[in-house]
Amino acid sequence: MDNLTIALDAMSGDFGPRVIVPAALQALDLHRNLHLILVGSSAEINIFLPNKHPRLTVIKSSSVIPNDMKPSLAIRRSQGSSMRMALELVNSKEAQACVSAGNTGALMGLSKLLLHSISGIKRPALVATLPTIKDGNTVILDLGANIESDSEMLVQFAIMGSILANTVLNIVNPRVALLNIGKEDIKGLERIRVAANKLKTNHYFNFVGYLEGDELLSGKTDVLVCDGFTGNVTLKTVEGLIKIFLSSNQLMTKNKSIFARLTRYWMQKKMMNYFGHLDPNHYNGACLLGLQSIVIKSHGAASQSSFLAAIEHAILAIENNLPERIASSLSSILPKSEKN
Amino acid sequence: MDNLTIALDAMSGDFGPRVIVPAALQALDLHRNLHLILVGSSAEINIFLPNKHPRLTVIKSSSVIPNDMKPSLAIRRSQGSSMRMALELVNSKEAQACVSAGNTGALMGLSKLLLHSISGIKRPALVATLPTIKDGNTVILDLGANIESDSEMLVQFAIMGSILANTVLNIVNPRVALLNIGKEDIKGLERIRVAANKLKTNHYFNFVGYLEGDELLSGKTDVLVCDGFTGNVTLKTVEGLIKIFLSSNQLMTKNKSIFARLTRYWMQKKMMNYFGHLDPNHYNGACLLGLQSIVIKSHGAASQSSFLAAIEHAILAIENNLPERIASSLSSILPKSEKN
Repeated sequence: MDNLTIALDAMSGDFGPRVIVPAALQALDLHRNLHLILVGSSAEINIFLPNKHPRLTVIKSSSVIPNDMKPSLAIRRSQGSSMRMALELVNSKEAQACVSAGNTGALMGLSKLLLHSISGIKRPALVATLPTIKDGNTVILDLGANIESDSEMLVQFAIMGSILANTVLNIVNPRVALLNIGKEDIKGLERIRVAANKLKTNHYFNFVGYLEGDELLSGKTDVLVCDGFTGNVTLKTVEGLIKIFLSSNQLMTKNKSIFARLTRYWMQKKMMNYFGHLDPNHYNGACLLGLQSIVIKSHGAASQSSFLAAIEHAILAIENNLPERIASSLSSILPKSEKN
Repeated sequence: MDNLTIALDAMSGDFGPRVIVPAALQALDLHRNLHLILVGSSAEINIFLPNKHPRLTVIKSSSVIPNDMKPSLAIRRSQGSSMRMALELVNSKEAQACVSAGNTGALMGLSKLLLHSISGIKRPALVATLPTIKDGNTVILDLGANIESDSEMLVQFAIMGSILANTVLNIVNPRVALLNIGKEDIKGLERIRVAANKLKTNHYFNFVGYLEGDELLSGKTDVLVCDGFTGNVTLKTVEGLIKIFLSSNQLMTKNKSIFARLTRYWMQKKMMNYFGHLDPNHYNGACLLGLQSIVIKSHGAASQSSFLAAIEHAILAIENNLPERIASSLSSILPKSEKN
């Protein structure tokens, strides 16, 4: 694909240019057709940019949206901010996608304002692809764009998740489940039960029922749907635990005998073999699905390698024409009356 | 303590008497002052009861509340059921506590109906003590008794959790946190933010702010408060992942060389050393806190050892006079107007 251009909100996240500039340079090394536009304070960016790069442009912004600012206020004060300017580059077609590790609520609000939702989508959702224990993948949404989600929104998340599983993961007739606190029909919140009834009776979906928290990595579903609050807490819980376990061999460093060192090495290797693919750093980058353009939200605390993963998510979404495919699939699923 | 008597709903859970009878016999072996009353089908119980036990009584019930029955219907049809009869034994003071692995909603409803809430408590909550990575403990509630919880309920959960942490875990001035999707004041659902303001301004609480999913086992708080839906999904997520990791050495059994076997043994030992205390089987048994009596909810899928853990939770609650201590602490915390 020619002309692959992505705008990065270089001031975003806990580390800003310190992490984002090196991640950008690494992405440029890996993808020869990639152009990146870094939006932020040139002075701060230049500290981490040893030389000019022919496929990297810096655009100066005048402010940064704070992480702890209320989204509504952040949006009112967003003029000239690195996040807004990066999104404006997508709006003006100078970039095909935007990646930011900034304030989720502000990113969601500004994206809707500047880039618009796909016709028929009530609210865009944050989606990620979670690796399963058996080397498969589960598309999970919403991860925090909509902390309260009614049954209609849950059904729309199921539609978008199914299309993503089908187009990006190449899964034919993807299985869809709702995250709930039990398997039985009567379990859970009313909005979940109403969504389940809608999913059951719509032939578009391969609805497999409710999934409980302990089956999250089981691979029993291809798409897992939940409200943004539950999704955010659950994903962070999974990530936190995996990090604890993957670093567990570091806890065991007291014994310095050769046998202990060898087994530690073996254990680390085995742990990485079996669980390395679950490492949150590898799948960082949630896509704000349901917009007419591509916006990727990185973790605020992303490291260089995990911000790189977010850039690669953006590349994959561009190469798969994700927004267009969602829009065209939607028109065949939703009854005309449900579209805007 | 003399006269320690607990009623067990012997027909409850996925395995009924097959698991509960052996767990009961094990508990009787371990606790010489313990008496158990098994409520259920004598025929089914006797299959797993090789001999009469001087400290075990069987009381015949005529029905079992199905797991998938709507709580309201289950309660209407509960007369003569093993769950109701076990609770009635607590009501008539023939037993000091009841343990059931049955329908959570029905257990909650029947417990309120028969055993009553402590004056001032709006809704009882399911609470468990989750081990932290550094050998500490975090009291977490609600785990599913109230799938929708308003800010007042969250504050009451904080009160009950603090009293539990103080009386059972002997923590002076326990730290209290709310489970949320970010650290900043503006984050999360409105009911959580309102509860945070109430906890901040009440000097009874040592409120430490919001905790995110990835810090669940960090030991950064002694009491973690959330609504029952989020708590249930999160706890199950933690348990599912820990089980995957603790059984991970079973995945690595292909290589049969002596070195591989030795390191596997070493690895299993190390894993159990570092993470064995996180094994969900060890902390099974959530207490229905806020009632005037003690009711313990075991996992439906509990194994013998984990049902035993639930019985031991009941013993601990009896020995600590938990309901009385909550009632007396409550009267000094809640303004008189907030009590029933």
